[in-house]
Amino acid sequence: MTMQILSIGLVTLGTMGIIDLIAATTNAFNGALLARRPDHYRNFTVMGIIIMAYFGGIGGGVLRDVLVSKVPSPLVNPWYLILCFAAAALALLIEYNATAKFKDGLFQFMTAFSLPWYAIVGAQTAVDAKLGYVAAIIIGVIGTTGGRYLIDVTCNVIPKQFVRGEFFVLTAAMTAGLYLVLHFSLGWDQTLATAGAFLFGFGFRLTAQALGWEEWEPWEPAGVKTSEKTREKLGEGLHAEFERDK
Amino acid sequence: MTMQILSIGLVTLGTMGIIDLIAATTNAFNGALLARRPDHYRNFTVMGIIIMAYFGGIGGGVLRDVLVSKVPSPLVNPWYLILCFAAAALALLIEYNATAKFKDGLFQFMTAFSLPWYAIVGAQTAVDAKLGYVAAIIIGVIGTTGGRYLIDVTCNVIPKQFVRGEFFVLTAAMTAGLYLVLHFSLGWDQTLATAGAFLFGFGFRLTAQALGWEEWEPWEPAGVKTSEKTREKLGEGLHAEFERDK
Amino acid sequence: MTMQILSIGLVTLGTMGIIDLIAATTNAFNGALLARRPDHYRNFTVMGIIIMAYFGGIGGGVLRDVLVSKVPSPLVNPWYLILCFAAAALALLIEYNATAKFKDGLFQFMTAFSLPWYAIVGAQTAVDAKLGYVAAIIIGVIGTTGGRYLIDVTCNVIPKQFVRGEFFVLTAAMTAGLYLVLHFSLGWDQTLATAGAFLFGFGFRLTAQALGWEEWEPWEPAGVKTSEKTREKLGEGLHAEFERDK
Repeated sequence: MTMQILSIGLVTLGTMGIIDLIAATTNAFNGALLARRPDHYRNFTVMGIIIMAYFGGIGGGVLRDVLVSKVPSPLVNPWYLILCFAAAALALLIEYNATAKFKDGLFQFMTAFSLPWYAIVGAQTAVDAKLGYVAAIIIGVIGTTGGRYLIDVTCNVIPKQFVRGEFFVLTAAMTAGLYLVLHFSLGWDQTLATAGAFLFGFGFRLTAQALGWEEWEPWEPAGVKTSEKTREKLGEGLHAEFERDK
Repeated sequence: MTMQILSIGLVTLGTMGIIDLIAATTNAFNGALLARRPDHYRNFTVMGIIIMAYFGGIGGGVLRDVLVSKVPSPLVNPWYLILCFAAAALALLIEYNATAKFKDGLFQFMTAFSLPWYAIVGAQTAVDAKLGYVAAIIIGVIGTTGGRYLIDVTCNVIPKQFVRGEFFVLTAAMTAGLYLVLHFSLGWDQTLATAGAFLFGFGFRLTAQALGWEEWEPWEPAGVKTSEKTREKLGEGLHAEFERDK
Repeated sequence: MTMQILSIGLVTLGTMGIIDLIAATTNAFNGALLARRPDHYRNFTVMGIIIMAYFGGIGGGVLRDVLVSKVPSPLVNPWYLILCFAAAALALLIEYNATAKFKDGLFQFMTAFSLPWYAIVGAQTAVDAKLGYVAAIIIGVIGTTGGRYLIDVTCNVIPKQFVRGEFFVLTAAMTAGLYLVLHFSLGWDQTLATAGAFLFGFGFRLTAQALGWEEWEPWEPAGVKTSEKTREKLGEGLHAEFERDK
C-alpha cells in the first residue's frame, strides 16, 4: 500500500515534482550535516537537528512557493517530509560512524550535488507563474539558497550568501539561467534541459571548490579591523582541505 | 459602540476565531515578559517591547496564514492588535511590580498555558485549506512556535525549537494531532475537541517543566568543546526553579 | 528599445508604482551604505553587498506584498532589480571616494529621505486589498522597516525597530496615518497626499536626528547589567555627529 501511494505520488508529480523532491532530500541531508559542523553546532537536540534538516531541505522551496502565492508543495505532498526525515537520519548515521576527513569531503561533495536542483525548479516555477526570465533567475536563487539562509540565521552565523563561499549565489543564478536558455530558447525537452543545467551547476561548483575560487571581497571600510585569520575560516571548500593535507 | 463592534467581531469569528484571539493574547503576554528576561533583554525601548509582544502574539498566526495563502487574520480583525497591546501592557505592569520569583513562575505557567491554542487553530486552519493531516500537524507546530522563533532570532538567541526546552515542539505536535483525532476521527464537537487537546497540551507541558523532562541531545560532534555549564542555562523549566530553591 | 520598456513600465505603474520604485531605489542605496558601516560590516563580498542592497531595497515591499497575498512587485517588474543594482553601485562608488564625515552625513540624510515612501505605498496597498485603516498603518510600517529588519538580522545586529533609533517605527506609522487622513478623510488627490505625507515624515525624521530625539527605554530588568557606553552606540543620529564635533 505504501508502494502504491509512492507511485501515485511520483506519477502525478511530473518531471519538476520529482526534481523538487530530489532537491529537498539532498538539501535536507546537507542541512543535518551542517547542523553538526563545529561552526554551526549549538548544542542542538535531536529534534533541533531534524528541524534544521527541514529548514535546509524545504526552506528554499517554501520561500519560493510563498513568493509566487502558492501553497508550498511540502504541505501538499507528505513525501517531502518523509524523505527529508530519512535524509536527516542517514546523515546522522554517517556523521556518527565516519572519520572527520570523510565527513568533510562528503559535505563538500553534497553541497555541490544538492545545489542545482532547486535552481532549476525555481526557474520553471516562476515561468509557470507567468513571471519573466529575470524573476525566474531570482526565484531560482531564492529556492537554492533560502534554506541555507534560514540555517545560518538560526545558528547566529553570517549567511553564506554574503561572505566568501565559492560562488554559491552565482552558481545558482547561472544554473537557473542555463536551464531557461536550454528549455525556452533552444527548445530542449524539460528532462534534457534539466540534465544540462545540473551538470553545469554541479561541475562549476565542484571546480570552484577544488580550485578555491571565491568571490571578490572589496576594500575594507575605514574603521574596521579584520585579521586574515577571520577571513580564512569563511572559505569552506575542498581547496582548503587540499591545502591542509600538504 | 465599542461593545457592539466587539460583539459583532466575536460572533462572526466562531469558535476557532475566538481561540485564535486567545492564542494571540496569551502569547503576546508571554512575548513581552520574554523580552524583559535577562537572556533576551537587549536594551529594548518601549516600542521594541510592544513589537516583541506582537511577534510573540501574532507572529505564529501570520506565518500560518501566509503558508496557506490567506491574508493573515490580525490584518483583517483589529481586535488582535488591541488585545495584544493590552496583554503587553499588563505584562509590563506585572514585571515592574512583582518579585523575581513570582515573575519566573508566571512566565513558566503562561508558557504552558499559551502553548496549546495555536496548535489547535493551526491544525484546523490546515484542514480548512484542504491540506492533509500531516501538513495540519506541521502548520500547528509553526503557528505555535513561529512567534518564539522570531523573538529568539531578533534577540540573537538560538531559537528554543533547536535546544533543550521541555519538549516545546513535540508538545505542539501532539496537541495538534490529538485535536485532529478527537474532532475528525472520533467526531467530537469542535469545542469539546479543543478542550480535550488543550488540557492534554497544557498538562503535558506543565509536567515536563515540573519534572525537568528535556529533549535528548545527541553525542557531541568532534571538534566541539561544550561545558556542562553552557547546557544547563538552556533549560528554563520549573524543575530548575525547584533545584535552585533547595 | 530599452527606453521603450522603461516608458511602458512607468506608464502602467501609475503614481503608487512610481513611488514604490523610488522607495526601493533609495532604500537599496541606504542598504549598501549600511552594509559597509563598521557596526554592520562582516567581511561581505561584492555579491553580499548587492544582496544586502536588495534586502534593504525590496525586502520591505516583498514582505508587504506577501502579507496581502500578492506576487511581489519586484518579481513582476524587472526595473526594481535594475534600479536597486544601480543604487548599490552608486553607494559603493561614493563610499570609496568620500570622507568618513561626508558618508555619515549622507547615510543619515538618506535614512530620513528614504523612510516615508514605503509607508505611503504600504498604506495604499492595504486599502486596495480591502483591509482596514489600522492594518494599513501596520502594513505601512512593515514595508518601511522590513528591509532594515532583514539586514540587521543578517548582520547579527539587534534590529533597529527594537532599540533607540530616533522614532524609526513611529515615524513610519505617523507617515502612513497622515497619508490615509489626507487622501481618504480629506479627499486630497493621491499625488498631493503623498507629497504632504512625505514632507511630514522626512521633516520629522530629520528633526529627530538633529535634536537627538529617541524612544524611551524603560527601567532595566533585574539581573541585567548594561553600561551607559553600550547604550550610546545604539543611537546613530546626526545629534551624535554634532556632539562628536564639539
